[in-house]
Amino acid sequence: MITVPIGTKSPYPVLIGEGILDSAGRLLADVHAPCRAAVVTDSNVAPLYAPRLEASLRQSGFTPCRFTFPAGEASKQLSTFSDAVRFLAGNGVTRADLVITLGGGVAGDLGGFAAACWQRGISFAQVPTSLLCAVDASVGGKTAVDLPEGKNLVGAFHQPCAVICDPGTFQTLDSLRMADGAAESVKHGLIADAGLFSDMKSGAWRQDLSRTVERNVLVKRAFVVGDEHDRGQRQLLNFGHTIGHAVEALSDYQLSHGQAVAIGMAAETRAARRMGFGSVHEDEVIEALDAAGLPHVCPFSSAEVEAVALGDKKRAGDTITVGALRAVGEGFLEKLDLASFRRFVALGVDA
Amino acid sequence: MITVPIGTKSPYPVLIGEGILDSAGRLLADVHAPCRAAVVTDSNVAPLYAPRLEASLRQSGFTPCRFTFPAGEASKQLSTFSDAVRFLAGNGVTRADLVITLGGGVAGDLGGFAAACWQRGISFAQVPTSLLCAVDASVGGKTAVDLPEGKNLVGAFHQPCAVICDPGTFQTLDSLRMADGAAESVKHGLIADAGLFSDMKSGAWRQDLSRTVERNVLVKRAFVVGDEHDRGQRQLLNFGHTIGHAVEALSDYQLSHGQAVAIGMAAETRAARRMGFGSVHEDEVIEALDAAGLPHVCPFSSAEVEAVALGDKKRAGDTITVGALRAVGEGFLEKLDLASFRRFVALGVDA
Repeated sequence: MITVPIGTKSPYPVLIGEGILDSAGRLLADVHAPCRAAVVTDSNVAPLYAPRLEASLRQSGFTPCRFTFPAGEASKQLSTFSDAVRFLAGNGVTRADLVITLGGGVAGDLGGFAAACWQRGISFAQVPTSLLCAVDASVGGKTAVDLPEGKNLVGAFHQPCAVICDPGTFQTLDSLRMADGAAESVKHGLIADAGLFSDMKSGAWRQDLSRTVERNVLVKRAFVVGDEHDRGQRQLLNFGHTIGHAVEALSDYQLSHGQAVAIGMAAETRAARRMGFGSVHEDEVIEALDAAGLPHVCPFSSAEVEAVALGDKKRAGDTITVGALRAVGEGFLEKLDLASFRRFVALGVDA
Repeated sequence: MITVPIGTKSPYPVLIGEGILDSAGRLLADVHAPCRAAVVTDSNVAPLYAPRLEASLRQSGFTPCRFTFPAGEASKQLSTFSDAVRFLAGNGVTRADLVITLGGGVAGDLGGFAAACWQRGISFAQVPTSLLCAVDASVGGKTAVDLPEGKNLVGAFHQPCAVICDPGTFQTLDSLRMADGAAESVKHGLIADAGLFSDMKSGAWRQDLSRTVERNVLVKRAFVVGDEHDRGQRQLLNFGHTIGHAVEALSDYQLSHGQAVAIGMAAETRAARRMGFGSVHEDEVIEALDAAGLPHVCPFSSAEVEAVALGDKKRAGDTITVGALRAVGEGFLEKLDLASFRRFVALGVDA
């Protein structure tokens, strides 16, 4: 088992290893006294992994209860959040108890936000069962739900007390879901780890998924620690996401997060190069995206993308900060005024 | 104008003075750059004070917009929260902008929670227009909404960047609303300021409301600083609230918060004395409640109160911590197991 300690203000470990789902109770008992444990999971993941998790919890003295929501991004909204906190109320979950999110990004974001707000914040642990959640959502403490107006607009920063990642659970992901995780892994390579990027291009990353998760967690840790509230360098993790989030919303979430971010990375790399502040050619990015089975052509016009992107929470007053690449493995932040940002979107999206 | 600096992790000033509502823009400009300012207020307060606040904001370069919800505790729920954050989305409020809550506890709790969650947290300022909000809700950073299962169950700790309190706005409160604020002031006197308690009994507190607000803020500050997340000594501020919240819920909110807390203080003082750990006689408390026009007889049975109180978020696993009095002005915390807590409720509520 690999242990990556995350040194946020309240530190916690990311534990990675094949088969550790069945030891989750014992591993959690190291960081939290046995208590009521509310498992927040979705309708796809529940039948696959909830019984194993709950059996392990019981063995270590926890008392599990389960909140299952319909699988899919559509559940990541305030009405499901309301159902979740009312479930916690109905099950007598107190400040001394624990929420455990089991599943992909939606379970983590929704369940984490419920834990952040329930009685103004109780502990939670994450058990990611998707590559995307393992390499991205499970580190950083960002929790949120979507509004009709955009993704992740309502949320909280709330660090988990532990992340337990068993890459064995990735076996039940289809290739589209694996590609979703690969997109964030390509991003981490591009902004901070040239070796990881190289493995994403060659496909070598598939051979040791525990190690791939670890490398991603290490990149993410470097950005998150010291900037928990996303005001500085951490914004580099939004590389590809400014355009990506807009594309995702425009597709009405028919494009997956990873597909949208892939399109966003290609577009933002192209735009930054054309505007002269980025030094990597988009073809390099596209090669890695192709290898991971990800798209790169934006199906929307720059006018459409721009309209949505200007409502994004990455906007602060009259500027938007975007990530860009000095070289593969070396990202930096560029602050754009609104006129420059419009040009950025046009140069990125329109061929 | 009185300035009370609050030394929480992100420090902020509480500004108190007759007429300062008309200087709110200038006072806010000292702590926040001019920006879009979303005023969150209720249907009673809006026509009385929103135009003055907004005129002052405009004079200092802020761009106000206004979200008005129906006055009353019934609005303090997730559906109004949803309306509020969608208002922020629709008005293009970004991370660089400001929420200003104008009104009583509901406006502060609801608007503060919206600010805490909007884009994972933006700045907010509080402009309390009720005595209750000025002496209690405006210091401490507690924000929340209610669930059908109980009060304040979903929320966040989120400190304001400034509190601007103009006691001139209290002139539009009826005597019931003034008594609501007086109840918390009696509480602050009982747990930490014998002089304030004495003024509550004599009625002297009514003669200088700015000074009364200041004394309450000073008591509250002493508990909040160093215990922002309500895990330790701050719980003493819940004196009267364990039974009080249950009574409030049982009345279906027909009893006001202050009335319920008054009943709770009398009952908890009686219970602690009868169980031997409290040293103040309830008659002393009742004298001050009478002087403030507050009730003290619990209209519900101990079985009813107990059932609701056990679901309260002050419960942690199998214990509940209650506040008690060593003397007037000297509170302390007592941790009760569930059996003792049942006895506590019975001895407090049943004559």
